[in-house]
Amino acid sequence: MTVLVFLDPAHDDGRIVDASQPQLMATDLGATRGDGLFESLLAVDGAPRKLEAHLSRLAASAAALELTVPDAGAWRRAISTGLREFTAAEPDRSSAVVKLLATRGVEGADQATAWVQVNPVPAATLAQREAGLRVLFLERGYDSTVAQRAPWLLMGAKTLSYAVNMAAVRHAKAHGADDVIFTSSDGKVLEGPTSTVLLAHDRDGQKTLMTPQLESGILAGTSQSALFAAAKEQGWELGYGPLEPHHLHEADAVWLISSIRLLAPVISLDGQELRTSATLTAELTELVDRFV
Amino acid sequence: MTVLVFLDPAHDDGRIVDASQPQLMATDLGATRGDGLFESLLAVDGAPRKLEAHLSRLAASAAALELTVPDAGAWRRAISTGLREFTAAEPDRSSAVVKLLATRGVEGADQATAWVQVNPVPAATLAQREAGLRVLFLERGYDSTVAQRAPWLLMGAKTLSYAVNMAAVRHAKAHGADDVIFTSSDGKVLEGPTSTVLLAHDRDGQKTLMTPQLESGILAGTSQSALFAAAKEQGWELGYGPLEPHHLHEADAVWLISSIRLLAPVISLDGQELRTSATLTAELTELVDRFV
Repeated sequence: MTVLVFLDPAHDDGRIVDASQPQLMATDLGATRGDGLFESLLAVDGAPRKLEAHLSRLAASAAALELTVPDAGAWRRAISTGLREFTAAEPDRSSAVVKLLATRGVEGADQATAWVQVNPVPAATLAQREAGLRVLFLERGYDSTVAQRAPWLLMGAKTLSYAVNMAAVRHAKAHGADDVIFTSSDGKVLEGPTSTVLLAHDRDGQKTLMTPQLESGILAGTSQSALFAAAKEQGWELGYGPLEPHHLHEADAVWLISSIRLLAPVISLDGQELRTSATLTAELTELVDRFV
Repeated sequence: MTVLVFLDPAHDDGRIVDASQPQLMATDLGATRGDGLFESLLAVDGAPRKLEAHLSRLAASAAALELTVPDAGAWRRAISTGLREFTAAEPDRSSAVVKLLATRGVEGADQATAWVQVNPVPAATLAQREAGLRVLFLERGYDSTVAQRAPWLLMGAKTLSYAVNMAAVRHAKAHGADDVIFTSSDGKVLEGPTSTVLLAHDRDGQKTLMTPQLESGILAGTSQSALFAAAKEQGWELGYGPLEPHHLHEADAVWLISSIRLLAPVISLDGQELRTSATLTAELTELVDRFV
């Protein structure tokens, strides 16, 4: 089932609405211009995970979009309402996907539309985590320095304008793959359409975890960030790009990490098998399990 | 007022709905992913203008998005219904904006959501046409050859993922300008966020009209195309880029052309005054008036 809770100044804890009925105006700029932002987070046993990190990224996206959205407290209360409703309806499910969405609202109204959506975790997502991912490199079209000189491109914001991300995944599926890693026009590894890239090396027991540098215009991964903090405590070395495709081919293991699918091993890149490591995956999954 | 007509297999001429009520599902991929397409066209005296060109571009956008949308006949009938309803409600308005929208529909439903929206032409749009436009060059981040090698970037498709286009216009307004002309990372002139770039030369009576080449990843302008056909009949020479910023500074006149605002002179670029020509604007406006 889907639970929808709209953020509404007249309802402190959010307004639960019937998800089987239309709830958005057809003139909402979210629908007509993809003009808005979102976050997807996991809830386990009725509690949202990494909530502060997601609310903080939501605020950063809102700033990039110059969009006034409800404050963190209003989001927290609406999330609680949504999860309570979801757990009551689906008591046997231990986890759920919580989406936070905010649009620029109806054209001319100057008032954001904001809502929380709670859904079961799709079975296909869990299956990919287990089976691993066949991935294609696809060019994102931007060079890795553009984010710093062209803020209007909204590179670090998680906007509702995801048509290209969706088209890239369709392209991968049409070519026998499961997912995509974007590269920049100057040959750097960027990110997945809905995930962050990780690679690891184990050299004589010194383990290193690497991810592309944020300055290349990628989204700040909340799961990557939490995992890096946990890995550092365990003695891992950490590294931040720039990464090129050959670094992924040379690594001891490569993963895509995101808030719902969590840590998923990449098993091939452009049809070429990659090294994988059950040991490293198990070790990092144990660290991921601490924050989810 | 706003008239909304949903395309619906159960209603041959479309289903008129109450535009003051929510009509979209909050889980529609148009709203949650900007995953869909649109067209904006002008109607004059109840008749849509350049309808075949818009329906043809809509079909091209659908192909790029691999999205199955209603056929041209269904769109034509829904547009007629919408315009009839609009004219009945607003008999004194001679023109209207007709938007055609189609999304990938509700997640998992595998059925596009498609509707027609009819509105008055905003007064601000007409004012810009008269006053002329102060324009900023802003980098679009892509090089001018990427569209040909990366179809997943959807460069020639008119998608609902317009957050960057909207952010660019906001950036211009925050910097004292009205609109934007995007440039490629390799320094070519591309297009406006919602318009096509035109420039003209008049050299000893031989008039030339130029626009950036389509291969640079810009949208095929329906108004530019119709104006070029009309100008050719009048003995104009036609040219298709590549154009660089200096070509605009050197031209006898520069315009942005689009379906609703029509031909609007550019009066300054990055704060530097441009040559304008009341004669050329009048002559081309007379040609535009033939197809609108």
